[in-house]
Amino acid sequence: MTRPAEDLSVLSAGALARLRDASPLVQCLTNGVVTNFTANVLLALGATPAMVDIPQEAGPFAKVASGVLVNLGTPHAEQRAAMAEAAGSAAGCGTPWVLDPVAVGSLPVRTALARELLAFAPAVVRGNASEIIAVAGDGSGGRGVDTTDDVEAAAPAAAALARSTGGVVAVSGPVDLLTDGVRTVRVANGDALLTRVTGGGCALGAVMAAFVSLVPADGDRLAATAAAVTVYTVAAEVAAARATGPGSFAVGFLDALAGLDEATLTARAAVSWA
Amino acid sequence: MTRPAEDLSVLSAGALARLRDASPLVQCLTNGVVTNFTANVLLALGATPAMVDIPQEAGPFAKVASGVLVNLGTPHAEQRAAMAEAAGSAAGCGTPWVLDPVAVGSLPVRTALARELLAFAPAVVRGNASEIIAVAGDGSGGRGVDTTDDVEAAAPAAAALARSTGGVVAVSGPVDLLTDGVRTVRVANGDALLTRVTGGGCALGAVMAAFVSLVPADGDRLAATAAAVTVYTVAAEVAAARATGPGSFAVGFLDALAGLDEATLTARAAVSWA
Amino acid sequence: MTRPAEDLSVLSAGALARLRDASPLVQCLTNGVVTNFTANVLLALGATPAMVDIPQEAGPFAKVASGVLVNLGTPHAEQRAAMAEAAGSAAGCGTPWVLDPVAVGSLPVRTALARELLAFAPAVVRGNASEIIAVAGDGSGGRGVDTTDDVEAAAPAAAALARSTGGVVAVSGPVDLLTDGVRTVRVANGDALLTRVTGGGCALGAVMAAFVSLVPADGDRLAATAAAVTVYTVAAEVAAARATGPGSFAVGFLDALAGLDEATLTARAAVSWA
Repeated sequence: MTRPAEDLSVLSAGALARLRDASPLVQCLTNGVVTNFTANVLLALGATPAMVDIPQEAGPFAKVASGVLVNLGTPHAEQRAAMAEAAGSAAGCGTPWVLDPVAVGSLPVRTALARELLAFAPAVVRGNASEIIAVAGDGSGGRGVDTTDDVEAAAPAAAALARSTGGVVAVSGPVDLLTDGVRTVRVANGDALLTRVTGGGCALGAVMAAFVSLVPADGDRLAATAAAVTVYTVAAEVAAARATGPGSFAVGFLDALAGLDEATLTARAAVSWA
Repeated sequence: MTRPAEDLSVLSAGALARLRDASPLVQCLTNGVVTNFTANVLLALGATPAMVDIPQEAGPFAKVASGVLVNLGTPHAEQRAAMAEAAGSAAGCGTPWVLDPVAVGSLPVRTALARELLAFAPAVVRGNASEIIAVAGDGSGGRGVDTTDDVEAAAPAAAALARSTGGVVAVSGPVDLLTDGVRTVRVANGDALLTRVTGGGCALGAVMAAFVSLVPADGDRLAATAAAVTVYTVAAEVAAARATGPGSFAVGFLDALAGLDEATLTARAAVSWA
Repeated sequence: MTRPAEDLSVLSAGALARLRDASPLVQCLTNGVVTNFTANVLLALGATPAMVDIPQEAGPFAKVASGVLVNLGTPHAEQRAAMAEAAGSAAGCGTPWVLDPVAVGSLPVRTALARELLAFAPAVVRGNASEIIAVAGDGSGGRGVDTTDDVEAAAPAAAALARSTGGVVAVSGPVDLLTDGVRTVRVANGDALLTRVTGGGCALGAVMAAFVSLVPADGDRLAATAAAVTVYTVAAEVAAARATGPGSFAVGFLDALAGLDEATLTARAAVSWA
């Protein structure tokens, strides 16, 4: 796919406007630590969250959802069954879904599950460098949710994984790296406070599902994922400028997502092809 | 039951004072997305939350609890067993309980469970128009937690359901409609920001359980439910006036619930028989 | 063990500096109501949370974690299996772990589990007076998470329990009492708003795991636990001074934990041997 003619910051602003207009329904099968924050991030942004994650409901719901997030942070047995059901159903009917392989590589149950889920062709795989390297088949992962590898060191694994899934792979870090296996985008926005709030990374997976759901299967999902990261991390900068610590940052971040306007977004966006 | 002599806003203020004095113990079997917010809403109000939701504990605890909330938002298998146990135990010993049939009608597992639980005569059934219509036996529900039907369109179903359960039915919306099958109350308070915070509706179910627990079984549970809605939605207005977005609104809402005084409540209350 | 030469407030400030430097990895198997707040408290403090609580992962992870928290607030069957696995693994490899026996004594499933877990020699048992008395083998517990017994009344049970486990026992209340069975510390800091936020007590268990992990097995774990309580409750005082209710208090508490400096800590600390 060739690069779009428009600047990625302008594309991001357009995507945000479309998201607020469409209010996509995002089904989240995510870890118990961050369900609340994830739902609130989606609501603040203008999307509609639905945490449908039990067997017999997760599959049917993935057919009516606009997008699906599968996050492996606390994968209890019943939720694992629902995740396989949802991913299979999403793949079968064309609902784009995002895989966040939290701590894959260092923990056995979720590592096996991630392998199984990859067969359902996630539209996006999102993780830190260690997780992406582990999912791609190299390395031995980090310690829990920490990252021990560098974003740029994960670039080859990310590109290989993207070519293998046919989707986008996003590596989070101080500068985020996104690739579809051919093209690469880097986003240099964000704030360290995002790492001091639990779910700061996990909720971004749900936001990616929301943005990617606005693009047809043959559309530019890399640009849509870049829009998700740009909107999310620029809102973090706005919130960080007003915060007095991680508590007020998390609150202000929700306000900033809800209030983010086109001028602020395009002025601050540090997103580029590279 | 006839209408009480007192104005509903005055009754609401009296009920809030009694709640703060009694600090009722509210057992919540609710969805994983909103447990934290629900507990904090109860604590801010002056009630005592207890999220006892496993088999062998949920039933015994429902006998010592003042009131019980059963919310079907993320009904995992073990919690479903605990819900049946708690509702059965509550019904058996006279503990009032509230059913919140989240997304019933559109999702199969919880729809079957809601049918089963209705046999235990909930003191209150609380939902949006689509959910109430689905529980009452009509329509096909909404898409997840959204409402696709209008509050007033649900009025006949709500009244029929209330006559069938012998309890109160509350339909949430811009103007909330409450009925015991004979009498009807409308509450026109609240703010749209309440729909931008996850659990904004779910936590109200717990607050209803707290208020209804203060009234004997042959008391006026419709007036008690109206007090719950009035206190909750007036606090939302107070918080909205100070908020800069959904994040600061949720924080300010807890402060407003804790700080709400009689003068503000009666001045703002838009609750009436109709 | 004899008393350290240094004042406990000075020791607490030193422990906080070491914690921020080491960023210990704290595995939390805790109740679903407070996972988010607990993780955010650890992040604000400078520790690294990881909520690994499923069988086959919880045991292996306890070997690489710096410390482990096992909190019995909502002990679902799968989590109970993971708790036994984690506590056994921690005991086997010397990872210090904290037991928070929420509502033990009044609820049957968790009471049996607490008995079983005590065999794995928790470095700290933390609870309110009723819970500590119940775990120690006396009394009949409180109603849910409430306390019905007085802190000082629990002192003999706490000391007996500490001698039996070989660890520290912490009894929470207006003045916290900590003992290793021989020596006793009292901490008179804190604010009533901490009881109006769900997880106000539960998160302290995770903070204790973080502080105790910095001390070797033959080090002074009572002083480390006292540092945890002192840092936590002084931060609560700082937050309470700026709060307008329980919502803003919880937010400000996270900011205060992140921003707490040595001068404020030592000036406010009301911690002493007694």
